[in-house]
Amino acid sequence: MSTTTRGPSDHNIRDQIVDAAMEYFSHYGFEKTTVSDLARSIGFSKAYIYKFFSSKQEIGEVICTNCLTEIARRLEAALAASSSATEKIRTLFQVIALGGTELFFRERRLYDIAAVSSRDRWAAAVDYEAGLRKTVVDILQEGRSAGEFEQTTPLDETAAAVYLVLRPLADPIQLQIYLDTAEADAALLTAVVLRSLKP
Amino acid sequence: MSTTTRGPSDHNIRDQIVDAAMEYFSHYGFEKTTVSDLARSIGFSKAYIYKFFSSKQEIGEVICTNCLTEIARRLEAALAASSSATEKIRTLFQVIALGGTELFFRERRLYDIAAVSSRDRWAAAVDYEAGLRKTVVDILQEGRSAGEFEQTTPLDETAAAVYLVLRPLADPIQLQIYLDTAEADAALLTAVVLRSLKP
Repeated sequence: MSTTTRGPSDHNIRDQIVDAAMEYFSHYGFEKTTVSDLARSIGFSKAYIYKFFSSKQEIGEVICTNCLTEIARRLEAALAASSSATEKIRTLFQVIALGGTELFFRERRLYDIAAVSSRDRWAAAVDYEAGLRKTVVDILQEGRSAGEFEQTTPLDETAAAVYLVLRPLADPIQLQIYLDTAEADAALLTAVVLRSLKP
Repeated sequence: MSTTTRGPSDHNIRDQIVDAAMEYFSHYGFEKTTVSDLARSIGFSKAYIYKFFSSKQEIGEVICTNCLTEIARRLEAALAASSSATEKIRTLFQVIALGGTELFFRERRLYDIAAVSSRDRWAAAVDYEAGLRKTVVDILQEGRSAGEFEQTTPLDETAAAVYLVLRPLADPIQLQIYLDTAEADAALLTAVVLRSLKP
């Protein structure tokens, strides 16, 4: 085989492998399957897959990044449509709880990958967490400027606390426990947070 | 062997088995060990252990009940020493976070049993949760009567929400994620809850 040049077609093949892998892991799980299993199932040789990805984890990371990016995209759109900081807190809790529920547990069953990514602190999970923390700070600053939220507690402390309340719904390992009640739980937690933010 | 009469000495032997099993599971874990392993290690025959317990789970349940009862006992004592409902909220979060950390992860490493009990909804875990929910209601009622807490939100809703904020620290499966920061996290969550309860 000659030396490969990485061009658009290689990108297409990478995408094809990722799509097929997402389908495969969604059915058979991530932790207990191998690249050989995956290759056999999607009709590529194992060696061919290894031309594009150095490990199963690398494939998993791309899938995980895609999913978390999708939740972040939904969140961004929903926040842009929310008219106040108060409304944005509500949106934040709802979209995170429902987005995670759908993408990791229902539409696509990628819980396995999400759980490993959270447990092993993959870059995708760490970035997602950092993005959520930043979103919380932004909403709090907006609400403080608008006089909607109290300003006595240091911003850092409030942001850390709000993120901590949100975290069980954002972390797939924990979200699993709240699956059946995620929407109602998000509403209850939102109410606590909003009462705690009252000026 | 003649028919056994269950008297004080049988109770002693049960306690001996439970103590030895707690030591054993603390070292070797609960999920991946068998009653045969345990019997061999503590020098009893498997048949003899089965005279007192019908399954490994039954032994695990007694150990779990003992641990959760110990946390509940510590909580009760600490609450009795707390001078106001506000102080009791602080006490609740601290004792639950630290009691769980110590009993399941540090002094005794019984995380394994605690996690199975939570996942499989053993009676000990269900009772513990019900006890905590009742404690939350009691503290809220005390704080409302004393004028320390707001009374606008229905009590049921506030109680469900406060329990939901506490839950990551009370559930061993979730607590594992917060182990290194349990004390600081308990303080942050307490602050949110207390601000949300302000009249």
